[in-house]
Amino acid sequence: MPRIPDERPLSPQPGIIDELRRRLPTASVLSTPAELAPYECDGLTAFRQRPMVVVLPETVEQVQTVLRLCHAARVPVVARGAGTGLSGGALPLEDGVLLSLARFNRILHIDPDNGTARVQPGVRNLAITEAAAAHGLYYAPDPSSQIACSIGGNVAENSGGVHCLKYGLTVHNILRLTLIGIDGELFEVGAEALDSPGLDLLALMTGSEGMLAVIVEITVKLLPRPERAQGLLAAFDSVERAGAAVARLIASGITPAGLEMMDNPAIRAAEAFVHAGYPEDAAAVLICELDGFNAEVSFEVMRVRELLLDAGATEVRTARDDAERLNFWKGRKAAFPAVGRLSPDYYCMDGTIPRRELATVLKRIEALSEHYGLRVANVFHAGDGNLHPLILYDANVPGELDKAEDFGGDILELCVQVGGTVTGEHGVGVEKLNQMCVQFDSDELTQMHAVKAAFDPHGLLNPGKAVPTLHRCAEFGAMHVHHGELKFPELPRF
Amino acid sequence: MPRIPDERPLSPQPGIIDELRRRLPTASVLSTPAELAPYECDGLTAFRQRPMVVVLPETVEQVQTVLRLCHAARVPVVARGAGTGLSGGALPLEDGVLLSLARFNRILHIDPDNGTARVQPGVRNLAITEAAAAHGLYYAPDPSSQIACSIGGNVAENSGGVHCLKYGLTVHNILRLTLIGIDGELFEVGAEALDSPGLDLLALMTGSEGMLAVIVEITVKLLPRPERAQGLLAAFDSVERAGAAVARLIASGITPAGLEMMDNPAIRAAEAFVHAGYPEDAAAVLICELDGFNAEVSFEVMRVRELLLDAGATEVRTARDDAERLNFWKGRKAAFPAVGRLSPDYYCMDGTIPRRELATVLKRIEALSEHYGLRVANVFHAGDGNLHPLILYDANVPGELDKAEDFGGDILELCVQVGGTVTGEHGVGVEKLNQMCVQFDSDELTQMHAVKAAFDPHGLLNPGKAVPTLHRCAEFGAMHVHHGELKFPELPRF
Repeated sequence: MPRIPDERPLSPQPGIIDELRRRLPTASVLSTPAELAPYECDGLTAFRQRPMVVVLPETVEQVQTVLRLCHAARVPVVARGAGTGLSGGALPLEDGVLLSLARFNRILHIDPDNGTARVQPGVRNLAITEAAAAHGLYYAPDPSSQIACSIGGNVAENSGGVHCLKYGLTVHNILRLTLIGIDGELFEVGAEALDSPGLDLLALMTGSEGMLAVIVEITVKLLPRPERAQGLLAAFDSVERAGAAVARLIASGITPAGLEMMDNPAIRAAEAFVHAGYPEDAAAVLICELDGFNAEVSFEVMRVRELLLDAGATEVRTARDDAERLNFWKGRKAAFPAVGRLSPDYYCMDGTIPRRELATVLKRIEALSEHYGLRVANVFHAGDGNLHPLILYDANVPGELDKAEDFGGDILELCVQVGGTVTGEHGVGVEKLNQMCVQFDSDELTQMHAVKAAFDPHGLLNPGKAVPTLHRCAEFGAMHVHHGELKFPELPRF
Repeated sequence: MPRIPDERPLSPQPGIIDELRRRLPTASVLSTPAELAPYECDGLTAFRQRPMVVVLPETVEQVQTVLRLCHAARVPVVARGAGTGLSGGALPLEDGVLLSLARFNRILHIDPDNGTARVQPGVRNLAITEAAAAHGLYYAPDPSSQIACSIGGNVAENSGGVHCLKYGLTVHNILRLTLIGIDGELFEVGAEALDSPGLDLLALMTGSEGMLAVIVEITVKLLPRPERAQGLLAAFDSVERAGAAVARLIASGITPAGLEMMDNPAIRAAEAFVHAGYPEDAAAVLICELDGFNAEVSFEVMRVRELLLDAGATEVRTARDDAERLNFWKGRKAAFPAVGRLSPDYYCMDGTIPRRELATVLKRIEALSEHYGLRVANVFHAGDGNLHPLILYDANVPGELDKAEDFGGDILELCVQVGGTVTGEHGVGVEKLNQMCVQFDSDELTQMHAVKAAFDPHGLLNPGKAVPTLHRCAEFGAMHVHHGELKFPELPRF
């Protein structure tokens, strides 16, 4: 494997701000403290850093100009969409340029015959669906932040959402990207076809967290809007039973559009907040959505209802109408802010596990909760094993933030230990760098750095995110030993 | 963009065969002309080259040994599965080692609870489905060669099949790969989860045609076997109407498990060969398969039948039973050998186009057929726009092979011109190198070479395949000018 240096060699030239001002419109360069403040963090607000300068280019040529200047001056660049990311992928660098794509907010073309749309990266996720609605089409991936988050950020993080069980992640719903490399060169990856010849750079770019190139245009797939969507809500008196029901449902061959689980603390918090009519004494609820043609949905609802009752559900409700279906979702969608009312702060994790490990992992999380003395509420995309434990803490109590971070780290390492991964849909960013050291060995991380270097030899695009340096992993390993034991010294690889 | 040298610097050491003999079991090293002969081509038999030596390792350690020796001696290595590939991806090099994975033929583990199987790369595609059948599961991608082709080759070429419209290509049906790099290091990519953190090396590896690493283990997804599969056969009096019917069917929101089209020459050839009862005077037939739960399939059959008649089908047959369904497929599956009976030789192309361009492209192919004086029969995966024109020629007539190749090249360039790609599921190999120059510009090809170099800095893994050198593209461009005009001088990029 090629060797990659651990340190980013930097000698930023202070003249870059003046140069940017000379080359871009006045309103496109921000550098006063008041102007910079809104950019100091993304959705992971625990990490904050004011950038050296913010640029808001309006054209492809201006993005090329910015990148060429940064390349020549060896100044790092962090691209930013709507800033809703939850792993700190858009956290600025003190000595870097923050490149906002907010002004790339146009839907360029909708092709209803082929079911595609060409859009700029700053377009909001939901705006694509709104624009496609006139043709009976929609864009499937729906992160919780879809009102606000941008499609460029979705591509950078390979975002999911409650419907990704049936419709896939962002990578399964895009066809083509236009990108600008760190040297300012424009290039395209992908094709309007199932596959693109040569190396699959489209998938490589998706989820690469701004480390390889800057996205300036995206062709997405649009799907026909289903004739009907039907909601079910099932209550269980144990989390194990709910987990087993999920496994049986998936094994039956039915793929729900969404299949979400909430545990009792999450149910109580949501119910107190939005009064969705959830059974407050249930140990777990499943919210299941089935979509498709009316006749097919009718059949599947019957089948799923039988299956859930047979799997031990104490109650299965079938939404009488769309209003009741939306009510089932209301609690789930409000779960994060609802939990926010229980505690001054919470920390949202995003691990993925094989479905069969659901019950085991929840038990271990409960034990960790007692160990750290921090409450936890669990909300997750049960169908694809993507957990979102919400760790409750109070940042004003000295030491609680650190404890919450350690707790979160333990949860992610547990996910890896049972054969899962440290992130499902939020990306690694700065948040999960240490856990990447647990998931990948040094050869595997080195290979990722080598691929990054093939696009960005000087390490200027979002350095320090997504893939940890070996130096950092060595330090993290040492920290674990310092705690008295190497927690997961020999993870079984197979 | 980094610059990549155009030429592969080689100084092979003649001692490598002796060294391989010392380090591997006797029966694992083949070097006499008789032993080498079976390896001189894959399924693209027009290209033949005897390798310097063939190795058939039996263990991961032996593969590591082979790669370390080749790396140290700077000897190129071509990996080979079952040798059924249609683009020459496993064509040996005169001065290279041919590394056969044929002895990696074990299914290591089936996990019915999680719907996964761990297999070695030499396992036949169909053998996975056979082994999973006891659990009511199957492996979805089904290339025509599935009786013979190996799963490792499927991953290397990102193979499809008649069911990839609904179930995706190989990349959508695998979870994890264990690989050995050119330096002999073992590494893993992917995870048993929807997404894997960091760069998506799993997708990058899939379809990389042996250029990045050698696959030694694969974790595939298994799906529940559908309760029912139902076939329909629709006849049309024009290819345009059949194409329009395909577009309407997809736009309706129904995703058939398979949706295939054959034109009149293909229909006649197949009917004469297997007597499937096809309507021989139809301009085109569509074969549509719907699968899922019985109740859902019943609904969809009714809906599709109505839709096809409404779209102008002159006849729609619904298979009365599974025997009749298989009979519908019999002609389609026999199309290649059937066409082979019409002509001493045929050349199978594999372009992909946006569905809306189906009728236009077929008209242009007809015009090219007249221009070259070579007959053509069209068989294709209509649902995903993947064409397989079969060009009929006689290799014993001087000049006909060259004409067939030029004709094929023109078809692929036409695919690119209408917004498609030069390969759907057969890979680029050596066959479509020139057309890659049409699809990608020099920056894009250079970027692919840079990614290859991040894995294989000395260019030893399957050099000369899949991604053309810029030198070759320059020569190819020059050749086009020599014909009197640059055929597609300014392809519209959007």
